[in-house]
Amino acid sequence: MFVDGLECSNFDREVFEELRGGDLGCVTVTCGFWEDTIESMDSLVAWRDLVRANADLVAVATTADEIEGIRADGRTALLLGFQNSSFLSGRIGYVELFADLGVRVAQLTYNIQNDVGASCYDPVDGGLTRFGREVVEEMNRAGMAVDLSHVGERTSLEAIEHSAKPVAVTHANPASLVPHPRNKPDRLLRALAEKGGVLGVSGYRNISGEYAASADTWAELVARTADLVGVGHVGVGSDLGRKVVYADLQWMRQGRWTRTAQYGAGSAANPGKQPPLPWFPDTRSFPALAEALARRGFGTADVAAVMGGNWMRFYHEVLPNRSTKE
Amino acid sequence: MFVDGLECSNFDREVFEELRGGDLGCVTVTCGFWEDTIESMDSLVAWRDLVRANADLVAVATTADEIEGIRADGRTALLLGFQNSSFLSGRIGYVELFADLGVRVAQLTYNIQNDVGASCYDPVDGGLTRFGREVVEEMNRAGMAVDLSHVGERTSLEAIEHSAKPVAVTHANPASLVPHPRNKPDRLLRALAEKGGVLGVSGYRNISGEYAASADTWAELVARTADLVGVGHVGVGSDLGRKVVYADLQWMRQGRWTRTAQYGAGSAANPGKQPPLPWFPDTRSFPALAEALARRGFGTADVAAVMGGNWMRFYHEVLPNRSTKE
Repeated sequence: MFVDGLECSNFDREVFEELRGGDLGCVTVTCGFWEDTIESMDSLVAWRDLVRANADLVAVATTADEIEGIRADGRTALLLGFQNSSFLSGRIGYVELFADLGVRVAQLTYNIQNDVGASCYDPVDGGLTRFGREVVEEMNRAGMAVDLSHVGERTSLEAIEHSAKPVAVTHANPASLVPHPRNKPDRLLRALAEKGGVLGVSGYRNISGEYAASADTWAELVARTADLVGVGHVGVGSDLGRKVVYADLQWMRQGRWTRTAQYGAGSAANPGKQPPLPWFPDTRSFPALAEALARRGFGTADVAAVMGGNWMRFYHEVLPNRSTKE
Repeated sequence: MFVDGLECSNFDREVFEELRGGDLGCVTVTCGFWEDTIESMDSLVAWRDLVRANADLVAVATTADEIEGIRADGRTALLLGFQNSSFLSGRIGYVELFADLGVRVAQLTYNIQNDVGASCYDPVDGGLTRFGREVVEEMNRAGMAVDLSHVGERTSLEAIEHSAKPVAVTHANPASLVPHPRNKPDRLLRALAEKGGVLGVSGYRNISGEYAASADTWAELVARTADLVGVGHVGVGSDLGRKVVYADLQWMRQGRWTRTAQYGAGSAANPGKQPPLPWFPDTRSFPALAEALARRGFGTADVAAVMGGNWMRFYHEVLPNRSTKE
């Protein structure tokens, strides 16, 4: 089964059809970046309506078994995720409420310090806050995967240590291969792997550098990452942003926290939306990724693990056993 | 099984113990009167914490089967209810979200006109609004019981007609027996019964008048109500407010909508909290209610129907089959 650990596309029927075209079994979608509780609930309502209108192509999954069931009847399972913990509005009790509403993945911070911890762009990282420790515990209990992709190093290390369950970096690369604040130092990735976590390797241009050149260079990035953390802890996290426009990018980068231009993983010299990767314009290229891994020398079992098996193992360990599906 | 269709007590362990003392199988509790979405979610969090801390006595039920299971292991099932639709904040999609969070009963309005319809105290009742029609449909779909207790007559009649499922008046009496704006005209009660609904007869002093004198006069009220609507459509809705203090009463009556004194079902001449009924100080008196019904001439099957069976039939028809319990 093919699994994409993180996408931030503006989904519609056409993008769902691309998921089917790539034979995707499961994708984590981004329901919000900076949204507060009410805005996040409004996003969940919109997601439910969108999924109902396209129930022949996709369904929301709330357990690993549901992912497999949805896949078995020829559809793509969606895991509902947030790239921030702002939906909590500082309430520990809301972890459980949003889990009941179907949310299964949450990044502790987006691009700035919040009440849970520091982001990868903050000059000072004081670590996982006291509230953050509570949030990690509650996410463990509720079956919500902890995502550290945009999270600062110290906060991430403390979250990995504090978590009773494996955690994820759904979309980032090793900083030792592509130096960038969004990428992860080796010691963090080793701690993640020791805990049983998974890193979703991304071909997103701003954080994959020269490895973004082709499916084969991307396969090389995967191979070197597997050398660092073990092939059992590497997955795909495309960070694909189909139909994302500049206004979306501005919202991601600036939210409401600043009036000044921010560039996220880009820079003043490179401020715009990155052009699509010619070898990965959309998820229909997932089979080509698997082929590139095979060309690079991955055996059949390892290709299957990287392309989806590792994520599925992670979901079986982290997501609840009990469905909260309608 | 004994069922109380509506209480507004400030529950704590002592009040839960009273439920067990009365052998209550199920009680609908009041999670809010005027609260908006966030405040209502905060109330649900507080309810979850309270129930977890008293899990030996009570549990939240989300289906009729769960009520019976909780009852079977010697605890009291709680249905989470709101006495207003303010938790929706005008969003149709939130009916489903709050149903997923376990809410099973909602009154369309409390004591003033809102975006759904008019209350029983409003001088003009323009009927169920366009949004109100959507809300009733969505509540039908989500398995949330429609409660019309404080709702205006025209709005109620239109809700009964529009609803695809039976609806409830969880706590009120026939106005032909006790004239009061909070009580219900015969034509409304007949429409309710024709739809398969249930009226919870209340001993609350302000709306039961002379029938509040004793368990036997209350039984007389039940008998006359059964004559009007049929014994299959009468239940108990005590409206009990254990540990409710004057500040709570002010919140119920004035909310945030007025700075002037309001008296709810009371009056300027009778503004205070009503003293407890000597024959019904708390739910430990439920067995005494059953005995009074038997003295009044109700047969065993009818006593069982009024004391809980009718509510259970209603819950089996209206609540979802699928649990949303943790």
